[in-house]
Formats: sequence, C-alpha cells, structure tokens
Amino acid sequence: VLDPADWERFRASAHHALDDAIDFMRDVRERPVWQPVPEDVKETLRAPMPRDPTAFDDVYDEFKRAVLPYATGNIHPRFLGWVHGSGTPGGAVADMLAAAMNSNAGGRDHGAVYVERQVISWFHDLFGWSAEASGLLVVGTSAANLGAVLVARTSALQSVREHGVEAAQSRLTGYASAATHSCVKKALEIAGLGSTSLRVLPVDAEHRIDVNALHDAVHRDRARGYHPFLIVGNAGTVDVGAIDPLEELAEFAADERLWFHVDGAFGAPAYLSPALRTKLAGIERADSIAFDFHKWLHVPYDAGCLIIRDGAMHRATFAGEGPYITRMQRGLAAGEPWFADFGPDLSRSFRALKVWFTIKEHGAVKLGEAIQTNCAQAAYLREKLAATGRFEVYPGGELQIVCFWPRASSEATVDEAVIRLQESGTAVISSTTLDGRRVMRACITNHRTRNTDLDLLVASIARIVEELQSTRSV
Amino acid sequence: VLDPADWERFRASAHHALDDAIDFMRDVRERPVWQPVPEDVKETLRAPMPRDPTAFDDVYDEFKRAVLPYATGNIHPRFLGWVHGSGTPGGAVADMLAAAMNSNAGGRDHGAVYVERQVISWFHDLFGWSAEASGLLVVGTSAANLGAVLVARTSALQSVREHGVEAAQSRLTGYASAATHSCVKKALEIAGLGSTSLRVLPVDAEHRIDVNALHDAVHRDRARGYHPFLIVGNAGTVDVGAIDPLEELAEFAADERLWFHVDGAFGAPAYLSPALRTKLAGIERADSIAFDFHKWLHVPYDAGCLIIRDGAMHRATFAGEGPYITRMQRGLAAGEPWFADFGPDLSRSFRALKVWFTIKEHGAVKLGEAIQTNCAQAAYLREKLAATGRFEVYPGGELQIVCFWPRASSEATVDEAVIRLQESGTAVISSTTLDGRRVMRACITNHRTRNTDLDLLVASIARIVEELQSTRSV
Repeated sequence: VLDPADWERFRASAHHALDDAIDFMRDVRERPVWQPVPEDVKETLRAPMPRDPTAFDDVYDEFKRAVLPYATGNIHPRFLGWVHGSGTPGGAVADMLAAAMNSNAGGRDHGAVYVERQVISWFHDLFGWSAEASGLLVVGTSAANLGAVLVARTSALQSVREHGVEAAQSRLTGYASAATHSCVKKALEIAGLGSTSLRVLPVDAEHRIDVNALHDAVHRDRARGYHPFLIVGNAGTVDVGAIDPLEELAEFAADERLWFHVDGAFGAPAYLSPALRTKLAGIERADSIAFDFHKWLHVPYDAGCLIIRDGAMHRATFAGEGPYITRMQRGLAAGEPWFADFGPDLSRSFRALKVWFTIKEHGAVKLGEAIQTNCAQAAYLREKLAATGRFEVYPGGELQIVCFWPRASSEATVDEAVIRLQESGTAVISSTTLDGRRVMRACITNHRTRNTDLDLLVASIARIVEELQSTRSV
Repeated sequence: VLDPADWERFRASAHHALDDAIDFMRDVRERPVWQPVPEDVKETLRAPMPRDPTAFDDVYDEFKRAVLPYATGNIHPRFLGWVHGSGTPGGAVADMLAAAMNSNAGGRDHGAVYVERQVISWFHDLFGWSAEASGLLVVGTSAANLGAVLVARTSALQSVREHGVEAAQSRLTGYASAATHSCVKKALEIAGLGSTSLRVLPVDAEHRIDVNALHDAVHRDRARGYHPFLIVGNAGTVDVGAIDPLEELAEFAADERLWFHVDGAFGAPAYLSPALRTKLAGIERADSIAFDFHKWLHVPYDAGCLIIRDGAMHRATFAGEGPYITRMQRGLAAGEPWFADFGPDLSRSFRALKVWFTIKEHGAVKLGEAIQTNCAQAAYLREKLAATGRFEVYPGGELQIVCFWPRASSEATVDEAVIRLQESGTAVISSTTLDGRRVMRACITNHRTRNTDLDLLVASIARIVEELQSTRSV
C-alpha cells in the first residue's frame, strides 16, 4: 500500500505544502521574476533513482529548496517573455482535486467525461457551432493543430488511415503564412506529408497572410497536379499577434473546398471580449479551431483544445477498436462516444476540471475583460517606449504583443540586453527576428501586470541598453 | 486580476478542499467503486458558459455535488476493471504544487527541466543506457508509441520530415503481434503509413508473438520490395499481460537492422522488481521503450514516458526552429536542448514533479514490491476462481491480469454479469475477447487491493452469474 501510514500526519504535511503554495502565488511580486538554477542545485538534481523510501516531508523539503525557487516565472506580474499564461490559485486547487479523483478521461461513463463535454460545448456555443461539432482537450495548441491536420487529411483522403499517404499518390498541399507557428509545419511532418507540402505564403506589412498570393498558390498547385487540402489561418501570430483576414480565408476555403483551420493558440479566446471579437470575424466559419486554456485563459499548464465542426469526420480520423475497449450499453464501459475516439490518447487526465473551475469562478465577461486589459496595456507600453526617444516600436500587432528595439542597436545588443534584464530578475521579455531585424518582444498575457510594471520595464531596459551602448561591451 | 480579492478567505476554502480530497482518498474503501452519473446531474453539466463570476466556494460546492462522487473509481481497492493506476495522496499534492508553480516545461532554463531530465535519467540507468539516450514525459503510452514510430520512421527515411512518405516510395512496413494494443496501429496511421503497413503476426498459446512467423514476414516483405523498419514488442499485452520474447526480438531486429521498440505501458516498470526482471530480459536492448507512470507506478493521471537509445535520432525527428524560440547562452532562453526538441509540444506542464515525488517518497524497491504483490494476487485470484468449480481460468498471463469465464456461459452472460457487478458498486472488472471467447478480466494494477477484496470479488461475481443462469434472464 502506497498510502500514508499515518493519515493525520500526511494531512498536516499537505496543508503545510498548500500554505506554501498559496504564499508562493500571493507573494510572487516580491520575488525576482526568474533566477537561474545554481550549479549545486543542478548537481542534486542529478542524483540516481532512490532505492529506499523518503518521508514525504523530506521530499517536500528538497522540493522547496531545489525546485520551487526556480519556476519559469510566468506567474509573476512582470513576466512578459513569451505567450505564457499566469495561472490562478483556483486552478491549482482544481488540479489537486483532479489528481485526487485520478479519473481517466479517455472514455467510459463517469463524471470527468461530462465535465469535459460541457467545457467543449461552451466553445462550440461561443462560435455558434451546432451539436454536430466535436472537440477534445489536449496538451496544447501544437497537439490541437496536429489533430486538425489529421482530420483535414482524412477529409481529403478517405482511405488514408488504411493505406497511408504513399499509396494514394495524392500530393496533398497545405497553405499558411510565413508568420505561422512552426508547430504547423511539424504537424505536416508528423502526418507523413513532409514540410515541403506546406506552402509558406508571404505576409503584408502587418504580418497578415497575402490572400492574393494564397489564391495564386492554390491555383498554380492545382494546375501542376497537386491536391490542395488545407488552409491554416492565424488568430494571433506568435511574433506580433497579427490576425489573418479570417473572413476572406473562410470564403476562399469554401469556394475551393479546402479545410479551413484556425490556429488561435492565444487569440481565439479574445472572442470572449465584445471589443475584440470583431477583429476575429470569420473564425466562426472555420472547420476547426485550436486554442489554449493555459495561455490567455490562465488555466494552469497544460490545457489546450481542438474543436471540429464536423464531429463525424473527427471521429472517423481517430476512433479505433479493441476487444478490451468494447462499449457497453450500461455500466462503466458505456458512455459513447469516448474521448479516445477523437484523438491519439486512450489514457487522459481530468484536464477539464481546472478549465471548468477557472471559467466558472471568473465567468466569460471578466475573462474577456482581462484579455482586453492586456491589449490596452500593450498600447500603453508602445506609447511609453516611444516617449523615451530611445526605442523604435513595431507599429503592428492588434493584441498583447509589443515588439521594439533600441535605436542604432546591433543584434548582439538586443540579445544581451534581454538576457541582462532576465538575469536582473526585474522583468522577463524575449527577443525575436522581425522583418530581418532582431527585436525585443514583450507579451502581456498576464492578469497580474499593472501599468506600473510596464513603467518599471521601460526604465530597466532603457538603463541596460544605455549601459551596453556606453561601454560598447557588445 | 484573477487572484482572490481576499487571500485568507481563499486559503480557508483551499484547505477545506484539501481536507475533502484527503478524506476522499482515505475513505475510498467505504464507498461504491463506481456509480453512474444520475440524469439530473448530467443535466446540470449541460449548463451554458457562465457570463458572471461565481464565488470559489460555490464552484467547489457544485464540484462536490456533481463531479466528485462520480470518479472513474480506479483509486478504489476493488477497481480491477482496466489497467489503471490507483494514484497516491502524495502525487495529488505534488500536482497541486506543479500547478501553483505553473512552469512550462517545453524548454528554457528553469527547475522543471532539470527535474524532468532527472526522472528520465533514472530510467536510462534502470535499463543500463548511456548518456546518448534521450526521453520525454508525455500524456501516456499511446503518445509515447507514436513518438517511437516517428523516430523509427526518421531512422529509416532520413528525408521524411522534408519530403514526406509519398515522395520516398519506400513502402515501410512494421511488425507486431495480434495481441498488440490498437494505439500502435493508430500511430502508424497518424504517421501517414497506414494501418496496412503494420504486419499483424500470430501469437502462441500464451499470447506471445510467433517469432518464426515474424522472420518469414520480414523476409517475404523484403523479397516483395517492401522496406521493413520497425518491430514492436510487448512487455505486457493489454488482454492477458503476456510478454513477448524480447531477447529474441532484439536479436532479430539487430540482425535485420530494424528499429526495436517495446510497448511496456504497464509491464516495463516491473523491471523494478528483481523477481520480475528476468521475465523482461531483452527489454534493455530496445531502441526505444514506452511506458506509463500513471499505471503501475500510481502517479496521478496523466504521465507516460518515451525513452530513446539514440538521442540524436530522437532530436532529429522533432527539433524545429522559429525566431521566437531562439536559444541563448544565458538567461531564461538558455538550457539546450529543450524538451520541445523531442516531441510535438512546445507548451508542456511540469508533469515530472508528481513522478519525482512519487518515486522519491516510495523508492524503487517498494514500488517494485507493490508490482510483485499484484502479480502474486493475480495467482491467488486464479486459484480462488478455480476452486469455486464455477469458472474456467485462462492459464496464461505472467503479470497482474486474470481472465476467466463462467462454465457454459454465453457472451451475453459474461457482459451482463460484468455490468451488474459494476452497477452493484462492489467491484469493477471488465470483459474482453480472448481466442474467440468472451471472458471476464480482472487487472490488479492497484496498490490498495487486499486478498480479502479478491475473495469478495469471487463471491460477488459467482452470485451474479448464478442469478443470471438460474433466471435465464440473458
């Protein structure tokens, strides 16, 4: 038995851990955003597998010393490094409850399945989709994009599950802009189509797909004997947060009978904000949408979602069989369809519970407002940066991402300044390459950020850049 | 801000939830193993997305009423339905800590990465693998098997990421026994190879792969212009827990230069038991091994693992690039290689923490003993069932799975008896089809099960079968 010998002693230890976890979240503002893992701690984390038991309290002590201080930092109000959500205390408690229940949401007839169905139906409703639609919670949008590519592949090539892509000689081609996340290319690679099957289209000055170039590419490919099957539109590109003209893409996809998928990793939940919804017009016409709960909805990692308009096609892509998973009319093996019929995994955690708790606790309106606030903060940050006279600010980006760079700076200066800011513990931003230029990037996907945090960011990065440029150290 | 307005009030609520969760785990023996979700509860779980906030306590109350009572049941000592782990209280607390830290283990330089590397290295060491090996925590063995298929595909077809499987005209073929889990077939489907690329080989009387038939199939395929690339061996088949002759498979794979993957979803951790290790001889010669922490190691769902002997091939299969994920020498964007380079996901939870806690708290010896105890209990259950004179018992299966059937019973009787047992709440077993016969299946993957639980199972299922046969109701 792996249960505690003394439940009351374990209870005290667990409450102690919970108090620390709550303090850790409450007091995050007082700590550095990030600090590197010291070498001696790395060394302790190379110890071999323990043969003998260790008291829970002692394991916890090692955790508190060697692990807890070295979080990624994304729950901190001045973590603006990448598009990471900030989590919530309620979400952390929900995840503990899910782990205590330890349900397997791969299928069968029990509570976790109904909660996951409810969460998915909320997003069907949000986009006005019918009961024919399906969905699945997954690790994240990378997995959701892969799922969408596979369903689109089935839609284009009915025999693909049986015979594979080689036998079909179908020359499938997909289309997405150059600003698309690399996981889309990876999805086509995994699906056996190869990265060359993805036609990477140019973007306009605001990083939106060039629709004319898309039209030309599809028509040229058809003329050459290729089989166009998929358009991936972006609701929030990774570098600047651009939104492709989704309405136009939907129209073209319908005309050409192509599968229209939207990668809305962080952007799709902006649909909860009435003020931002119009920017996303057309997303509701997609055949499939991928998005994350752990980004702009602040559910603890990991939790992404794939919704598919044609639930039957979704099921046809993944449903399998085995005598050990035979469905019954009653009992625990009832409950068709199973989530395992809609994705690769037969064992799946009760990931939906933390989503259910988060959306219930805060409600759609407040979650939408938090997203809108971050967009307003991005506008504020752009103004503040420009007002220094020291930075150029990338004017595009409709959401929460701000790209900027010090005037007359080298790539090395940008990278070194970003690293020094991280090392200072004051704030975390990242760097990326935009239109050939190395730039700094602040992603305000953070419900804890205040305008004063952005003021501090501007002052800190300006000082670091000044130091670097005056000492010519890089 | 999505943080509590009143932290101390939230703290009280969180402690209340934790107490309930601990009671839920401690008192599990007093409850029915499983009960169906009542219709009125299902109805409440169809409510639309809430617009407005709900107090955390009220969300929790709904959870306690509508969700908590309807767990899958696998933490119960008499859950023997499928190969599900039982979880531990320590694992649940660890998952709460991971959610509070909210780290993203996709990459970068922070604590979660070092913990995950440590956990993976423990299993490299267990199988005697070198530092060239790699690994990744994933949702479960389905995802791990898919990862292995993709790495094997890269190994066989270096250009596959770029050009896909169609251009290569390679006619790849994989090999596995008829007792192999359906997720292996699904992995080949996802990879674009098609289910027909999997040669399904017959098994012997004990459900182990027919090695001669394998030899013949590979040679015949080569002669016909196919390109054999992968053998999947089983360390614990899903229906009866058979172990393929892994040493012979390793030998043949080496001779034929095929990738040798072992699906050890539940069986691989039996390697922790010195008594069981010899049964798995040869597994350490695999090119890749997939297994679950959430099954026989009782880590809360979900947590699986893929380890690959040739880490460079693993990385070559998945590593991608994007300016927004450029690696730095210092700062938060350091820490190469990133886990995103070894799998499809760029955002990943700190799944390793609950594994780290579980293995540290209990230690390798005790975890191995718990596995061995379950195998001894399976032998006990076989004896008890046979002693009733009412059941035939499948003699094979070397691990924790017991298949049996009432003498002179129909398929309908088997299924109905299994359902009635589940509905009674006394115990959960499942049914499957074995060598053409519908049978009952008890999987003792459970650290809480006692021999008296098995006595109660035998008495209960015997009584139900007697009732069914006497009333001829089915």
